[in-house]
This record gives sequence, structure tokens and C-alpha cells, in this order.
Amino acid sequence: MLLEAMYHVPRDKWAYAYDAKTIHLRVRTKRDDVDCVVALTGDKYNWQDTSYDIMMDKAASDDMFDYWEAAVRPKYKRLSYTFRVSKGNESVYLLDNGIRTEYPAPPNHYYEFPYIHQIDLFQVPNWAKDAVFYQIMTERFANGDPSNDPEGTEPWGGTPKLDNFFGGDLQGVLDHLDDLQELGINAVYFTPLFVSPSNHKYDIMDYKRVAPHFGDNELLKTVVEECHFRGIRVMLDAVFNHCSDKFPPFQDVLEKGEYSVYKDWFHINSFPAEIVDGIPTYDTFGFFGNMPKFNTANHEVKTYLLEVAEYWIKEIKVDGWRLDVANEVDHHFWRDFRKVVKAANPEAYIVGEVWSDSLTWLLGDQFDSVMNYPFSGTVLEFFNGGMDGITFGHRIGALLMRYPQQTNEVVFNLLGSHDTPRLLTVVGEDKRRLKLAVVFLFTFMGTPCIYYGDEIGLSGHEDPDCRKCMEWNEASQDRELYDFYRMMIALRKHNKALREGRFRILQACENDPCIVYERADDVIHFTVWMNNSPVPRILSHPMETDDWQDALTGEPVAPEAGMMHISLDPYGYRILSRHLG
Amino acid sequence: MLLEAMYHVPRDKWAYAYDAKTIHLRVRTKRDDVDCVVALTGDKYNWQDTSYDIMMDKAASDDMFDYWEAAVRPKYKRLSYTFRVSKGNESVYLLDNGIRTEYPAPPNHYYEFPYIHQIDLFQVPNWAKDAVFYQIMTERFANGDPSNDPEGTEPWGGTPKLDNFFGGDLQGVLDHLDDLQELGINAVYFTPLFVSPSNHKYDIMDYKRVAPHFGDNELLKTVVEECHFRGIRVMLDAVFNHCSDKFPPFQDVLEKGEYSVYKDWFHINSFPAEIVDGIPTYDTFGFFGNMPKFNTANHEVKTYLLEVAEYWIKEIKVDGWRLDVANEVDHHFWRDFRKVVKAANPEAYIVGEVWSDSLTWLLGDQFDSVMNYPFSGTVLEFFNGGMDGITFGHRIGALLMRYPQQTNEVVFNLLGSHDTPRLLTVVGEDKRRLKLAVVFLFTFMGTPCIYYGDEIGLSGHEDPDCRKCMEWNEASQDRELYDFYRMMIALRKHNKALREGRFRILQACENDPCIVYERADDVIHFTVWMNNSPVPRILSHPMETDDWQDALTGEPVAPEAGMMHISLDPYGYRILSRHLG
Repeated sequence: MLLEAMYHVPRDKWAYAYDAKTIHLRVRTKRDDVDCVVALTGDKYNWQDTSYDIMMDKAASDDMFDYWEAAVRPKYKRLSYTFRVSKGNESVYLLDNGIRTEYPAPPNHYYEFPYIHQIDLFQVPNWAKDAVFYQIMTERFANGDPSNDPEGTEPWGGTPKLDNFFGGDLQGVLDHLDDLQELGINAVYFTPLFVSPSNHKYDIMDYKRVAPHFGDNELLKTVVEECHFRGIRVMLDAVFNHCSDKFPPFQDVLEKGEYSVYKDWFHINSFPAEIVDGIPTYDTFGFFGNMPKFNTANHEVKTYLLEVAEYWIKEIKVDGWRLDVANEVDHHFWRDFRKVVKAANPEAYIVGEVWSDSLTWLLGDQFDSVMNYPFSGTVLEFFNGGMDGITFGHRIGALLMRYPQQTNEVVFNLLGSHDTPRLLTVVGEDKRRLKLAVVFLFTFMGTPCIYYGDEIGLSGHEDPDCRKCMEWNEASQDRELYDFYRMMIALRKHNKALREGRFRILQACENDPCIVYERADDVIHFTVWMNNSPVPRILSHPMETDDWQDALTGEPVAPEAGMMHISLDPYGYRILSRHLG
Repeated sequence: MLLEAMYHVPRDKWAYAYDAKTIHLRVRTKRDDVDCVVALTGDKYNWQDTSYDIMMDKAASDDMFDYWEAAVRPKYKRLSYTFRVSKGNESVYLLDNGIRTEYPAPPNHYYEFPYIHQIDLFQVPNWAKDAVFYQIMTERFANGDPSNDPEGTEPWGGTPKLDNFFGGDLQGVLDHLDDLQELGINAVYFTPLFVSPSNHKYDIMDYKRVAPHFGDNELLKTVVEECHFRGIRVMLDAVFNHCSDKFPPFQDVLEKGEYSVYKDWFHINSFPAEIVDGIPTYDTFGFFGNMPKFNTANHEVKTYLLEVAEYWIKEIKVDGWRLDVANEVDHHFWRDFRKVVKAANPEAYIVGEVWSDSLTWLLGDQFDSVMNYPFSGTVLEFFNGGMDGITFGHRIGALLMRYPQQTNEVVFNLLGSHDTPRLLTVVGEDKRRLKLAVVFLFTFMGTPCIYYGDEIGLSGHEDPDCRKCMEWNEASQDRELYDFYRMMIALRKHNKALREGRFRILQACENDPCIVYERADDVIHFTVWMNNSPVPRILSHPMETDDWQDALTGEPVAPEAGMMHISLDPYGYRILSRHLG
């Protein structure tokens, strides 16, 4: 056994309370290197009457490692534990001070989860586990009220540029809520809605007011009410890392320099606040002088932004916040943000925009979730022919082992956004590949999100091309694609197994881009078969029972002599299911 | 190169801000497996103008791994980075999504330290880096005021039992402050001083009042003032995990059951609060019914305990808190505790009692330090003949890599306490071994602490034997040992290199219990030579310069032909030094 590959620390994603009674433990070994792992557990103050051993499951694998998992329910909320890792007759024990070959007398040097505290529990909103999100850039979704169009508004459907406007507004959203309901989504994520000079509104001038060419606060409240009436939750975009240089406090700093009462609202490295040789003398988002960075440690700034966070939840009743450039804001701020937001609505959903490993923010005290760009990167690369099945399985396994289970259940899975090229464009306009990616999105763990228009065939390269106007003329929409999305949304919504059930790769081989995987809970068992290749394929996998059916058509599908053979067109897929118990 | 052994995550002790401008990076490789590690760094928003490469130092090794370290000072507070790990002509790159053999174009998939926030900095009190602590159990230190002795007080020097009293008090401490000053210590840690039925006072009845047989709050204030006058800091013991069952709110619960207004101050699993078959129906410290556990998530409890934390700092001017059973109290509590304590005194020192890996509490938002029992365990095992030099070096290396540098500089290093057998007893009453352990304590990184009486030869097995009365009769004291402690304290206090300088093992071999190591800063370079064996030994190590002297006697010591040979008695040591620049 390769001892150097074994890894556990008694914290973060390796040992955490899943709920008030359950601790999840994970341990890592070299892939295919050990036979079994057993967690030896107990209460250190009375080992004799509390100890028990738990066989761990191999929960995932990546290219180098296997990950073993167990759920432990300690009788007195306190847990001490070691891992016995075995191969054949050989065993080693993982301890707080290293790896030993002799059985270590408990509880000396055992790892500890000292006590499960309710207040420290990482609790995510239940509704987010069941949500199917739809991301809307209001400026590009629908123009419901031409009277509020900004000057220079261009005709709907024109070429998007970095700075042009097409008149989309909240009335347009309101007008199309029935359409969204018909599609089946039950949550909407709006990119920023507040007063801002830009069309994207990630540079905000007034955090307490809806942009006038979108409508006003009352209209947003109506949109939220109408959404709620339809069972649709609403998440807004919180741009708290930076503001617009037109934000009045920053204007005051530009005007009065170090005499401004707002000088500590920002990170001004030297006065005057200006741009010298392309580099601002104040901290910014990137090096954009028009986006000065907030000093979120300043008490007044913090009070202001936390009031904003609370206002839209309490007064306008929104259900969550997506946090722009979340990783560049301080942790003290996010901890207090979580307290304020969850006090205003304990079921509020908090999603950080972080593109890389985000565990730091996902330990229960800051975010519930992050935008899962590593997921989109992996899925799109796979369905674009960039890797074989086993590599995909390993990459997916690595993603599942990045975060605690709570986050895995509500991580914000997307295949594209206002910040990336459009899904259809990324897959080379090949709808078959697009569908494979979407099937995976809707049958995988985590909260899926559809970028507006992907469902009717909008295409587009990088920003600004990925921000085209929504197509509302049905004749110009891809209705077949729309029906497919609608079907997949319905399938997910009707089956808890697809949301919270166990995920496992059944078949994923080297040099073969096809995969078979399963999702299952106590009620239903799904298997998903994907021919991610340009030629027809028959995928075969052993199946013990013959009570399978096509999950989308209801057609019975039976194995032959215990082996299921599924014929698939190039880039075809099939979803089978069987009811349990 | 063994890829499975390589480890880095962009957080906690692996990537952290050391100060407002400096990020420390660490990466792990298999021991003796790679030639060099280079960190490739830059600002992701302008790689071209900000990127630079840093050769990493091998900072420590343990039995399986080498640990490489670098300090990076990013120009714009933002850092993206990868590690190039090389052996011969072969190189691999560590990235956020795995290990690659091709050079990865920056900054895609590079690790990120998104922004150095002053408010998130882990800042520890500077004085703690220079402190030499002395731990006092007041009941056993000196009886300065027989008038306040509790009933049944036994004559000073009698046999300690779990529940007897000898009359030690704060007047006794006050009477001996000159002695402490003469010894040279500059910080005192008092085990609990507040009203409590026990002699150890870890079961507190009134957190706002000094136990009457110790004195009163005013007298403690005088002790603190007199300590400060002598340059001695004072740390108290905060027992916030649990209280005494005589604590009035718990008495109220015992009396009124679920009708008590204090019922939510504790974790009562079922009423009445009682002990059934040896198991309390309420959560406790261990299973001790007389120590009910606080519900520190309850707002009233938290307010009460935080007021207590603040009161003793603000009113009585104490300089820090040692936190009893710190790992069983919730993280929200400790985060708020830190805010309250540091607001009351930004230089307050917070030391948690956690016996195992404590990184969770040492990320800047909770404690500054922990009681370093793993240190004592390793040191005592080594100087008791339990391991060879190389194993000791590896165990010490592993300890240094447990925590960020800030904590390493102030981790509370001890060789014994009221909870362990006495140092002299642990080393089999062999003063030579004791001295080796003490030399190591005072020449290693971290804040050393002496348990009262160790310096004059007190012995004792487990509690209650390790809590004997202090011996004040000089004729019965081991004055030679006292002088040795005094000398070692002075040596450490006079040389910053011994407190904050680089630590490195120079010689530590298999099957040989002798070691040579160094501490150095810009001013002075120490080498410490230890014959941890029962026979005379000559230790030899190459030394490039001939300007060495005995650090304790000033005697010149020169190498021969570039090789230093140091003759040592059984269990002998020698400390050499040379001035730099």
C-alpha cells in the first residue's frame, strides 16, 4: 500500500457534521491500491461502551486516488476515530500523528471531531436541492415597456456590443413568467438589476434602487410575487467587491481626495485617486478604473452593504444572492453577510462566484454554494471529445470530493453563462452533443442552471456575443430543443433520485468516450447510457433485474441473460429506470 | 517523482498571508524524491507585468515527506501560482485541477490567493513571541494569607489529593513575584482563580469573582499591576466549555426543570437533569455530572461569558486567556470571543487547550496558539530514549508544518502541566535528560512555559501527585537546577535568534539518539549539540568559520580543518554561537 497517498485531516471536507447527529468521514488512498477501509470510532471519555467499527464505501475515484466515505452517528455528539486501511493481510492505521502498523490503543492519537454543535452545522436551503434555475440578463430577455428604454436603444435582436442597449426590462420578464413556468423551471437568477451605467450592471451606482430602464423597486417586488405565485424562487446578483466609479461615495473621493469622508470606503493607495500609466492608484476589479474596489472591512461600507443584502430579502422577498467576484471580498464580511441574510430568511440561498477550489467559503460559515465552472469545463470538454470515459469519471469524482455533501447537493451547476461562450457554440453547434451535456447536467448531483435562450437554440461566442437578445418568435426558436429541455426538467423535478440520490459511474473505460452511470435512492433506480462518439454503438452492462424501462417513453427494456445491451445512435443517449421496493 | 505524495491546497497552512504584504506558500513532496520546487507567480489580471518565479526552500521533512516553503510579495495583493516540481530533466506542475507534465499557460487553473485582506490577517501578539511563561496553580504555590484558608486546610507540603487544600493564595503569589522576576520569566499563566468548590477550580460557580480563599478581585488586580510593574504578563484560564453544577443557573435547572429560565443555558437531553446509571441526562465535560456543559450558542450564555472574557481584561488588565477544553466549544463562540478580547486589548494572547491537530482554530479567526502537547510528547519520548535522532527530526518537522508561521512563533510549548506527570518524574528523575529537554524547549521555536516547581526539582506522577505544594525552603530546592533554568531563560530572552530565528536540524541519524541543530537570524547563529545517550560521545559536523564560542561560558571553540568536534558527557549538551555581520 502506498502510504504517501493516504490522506485525512480532521476538518473541512474530510470530517464534517452533515446534520445534528451525523458526521461524514472521508479518507483517501492510492487508486486501486487497497482492499478496504474501516473507521474505528468511539467516545474518548467512555470508549468501551461507545465504540463501533464502520466499513467505508468507495465513494469516488480520480486519476490518482480512491476516496472512502462513511457516515457516523456518535451517541454523545463526540467522536474519536482512526482508519484501518487493509490490503490482503496487511493493515495500517491512520492517526493524528502519522501512520502506524500496530493497532493503536484507543483513543490516544486518534483523530477527533470534538462535539457536534448545531450552530456550527453547515445548513443549506432545502429548496435549492430541488431547484432548476434559469439565468436572466434582463437587458436581453424581453422589452415589456418601451417607455423606459434608455436613449439610443437599438432594435430587439440586433448585434450585441459591449455597450449597447436593447431595452429589456422587468415588465418583459413579467410578461414571460408563464413561459418560464411552462418550461418548468422553478428558480430564476437575475444578473444585476440596480442602477448602473452599463448594460450588464456589474458596476453599480445605487444598490438600493432598480435601474429605471428596467423598472422600479415596486415592479421588482411584483415580479418576485408573481414568481412566488408560480412556485419560482428569485436570486439576485450582489456585486459587493466593487462598485461603479459613478457611485456617489467614490465620486466624492475623486472630488475631495483625502479630505473625503468616504476615503476609507475604498483602498486608495495614493491620492489623488486617478489612473497613472493604465494602473489606478486605488484597488479595482482587475485593473478597471471604473470599478473601484470596496473596503469591506470599513464599518460604514459593511453596514451599507449588509443593509442592502437585507433590504432586498426582507422588503422585496428575494430568495437568495449570487455573489460577484466573491473570492476577492474578505471572509469577515461574508461571515457577517451570512448571518444577516439567514436572519432575514433562513432559507435564503447564497452562491459565490469563485472559479477555482472554493472549499474555504464552503465550511458552513460563508456560502451555501458556488458557481461550478469546473463542472462546466469538465462536461464540455468531455462532450467535445476532449477525453475518454475513464478520465471523465475521474474528473467528476474529483469534483464530488472537493466539497462536503451539503454543497454537492446545491452546487450551482451550469454549462454556460453571461461570462462564457454559449453552450451550443461550444459544442460546435452540434445539438446531439449539446443534449448529452444537458442530460448529464439534469441527471447529476447539484442545482442545474439554464442560461436564458440556451433552451431555444441561442448561440454566441465570448461576451458580448453570448449576450444576444432572447428570441421570442416561435418560428425562429428551436422548438425541438425546447421540448427536450422541458422533458429533462420534468424528469429531474419528478424524481428525487436525480437530485439527491447516490451517483456512481458504472462503466467508463480508457480510450472510449462512452459512459454508463447510475443515480438511485430508495424509490427509483436510474441508469444513463451515453454514446459520446460519432458512430453507432451498443453499450452493454450487467443488470441483475429485468424490470427496466425507458424513463422518458415508458417502453420496457430487458437485459439478455443478465446483460443489458443498449443500441445508441452517434451521440445518442438513453435513460432507463426501475422502481424499487 | 511520486505524484501521489505531492500536496497543496490554496488555503489554511498551505497558503496564507503572513502579513499585509506577504503570502507564505508550502508544498509537500515525497521525502528525498525531488531536486527543486519553484513557485511560478503573478497577478491573473496582468500576468505579463507581474509574474516572477521563486525558488522554494526545503523547510522541513518528516518520515514520509519534504515540505517546501516560499514567501511571496504580490504587487497588487492578488496572487495566482503554480508549482514546478523537478528532478533531473523531469518536471511536473501542480494546478488547481491536478498535476500536469506540460507547462500550463498562466493563469488558467493556477491556484489563487485572491486578495490579501488586512482584516483577515492572522495577527498574534508580539510580546508572546518574547515570552517565557510560568504556570501557577495558586492553591499549591504559596500561602501568603492564612486568614483566608478554607476549612480543613492541610499543612503546606502534605500529600496532594484530588480534593484537599493547602491554603495557597494570591497573597502568596504577590509575596513571590520578586522570586519569579529573579528566575527571569516574563509571563504567568494561572490555572482558574474563580469561585469553585474544587482545589483545581475547573468547575466554576462564579465567573466574575476570585475565589475567597485566594483573595478577591482587587487583590488580583494588584497582582496584575505588580506583575506589569516587573514586566510580567498575566494569562488566566477560561473554563467556558462547562461550569460547576453549583453554578446558580444550573442549580435553577436542577430545581425547576423545564420551567427554569436557564434551561437553554445547557444541553439538557431530557428532564429532570439527573444522572441515570452513571450517565447524566445533560451534556457534560466527559461524563462528569458536576461539570454541566454550557450551550454556548445560547445568546444569554454567550453574552454572559463574553462579558466575563472582557471584564478581566478591561478591568483587571490581564493579558490573555488560556481556553480550557477549547475544542468542545463552538466556533461561532470563539470567533466572537476573539473579537471581544482583541477589542478589549489588541495584544491579548489566546491559547486553546487542544491536544490534537488544532489547525481549525488557528486560521486567524479564533486562537493565536494552542497548548503544544504533541511537542511535549515528542520531546519527552526522545529524551527518554524512545527514538533515534532522525525520527525526532522528522517528528519535529511534522510539528512545524502543522501550523502557519504565526502560530509556530507563539505556540505554547510545555514539558508538563497540572494535567500530566512532572517532567522530572517522566525522565526517571535523571536531571541530565531533564536538562536536554529544557535546553531544547528554550532553543526551539514557540513560547516556552515552565510548570511551577519544575525549576527547583519538584517531582510527581499523574494528578494529584503532580500538584504538590511549591517548595520554598532553599535548602530543599535543587538550586543547581534552578540556576540552569535561570541561565536558559536568560539565554533565550537575550537572543532573538532563539525566539524567531530559522530552525534547522544539522545532524540527526538513524539508530543514533544524538542531534545537532541550529537557530539563526541576521545577528547571531547558534548550534546546539546534544549527546542524548548514556555514553560519552564526540559529535562532529562541518563548520565553515572558526569564530564560534560556547554561548554559555564565552569560551572560544574552533573547528579543525573545517570540522567541528564536540566532546560531550553522557546526556551532555553544548550550545555554540557566533555573531554575524
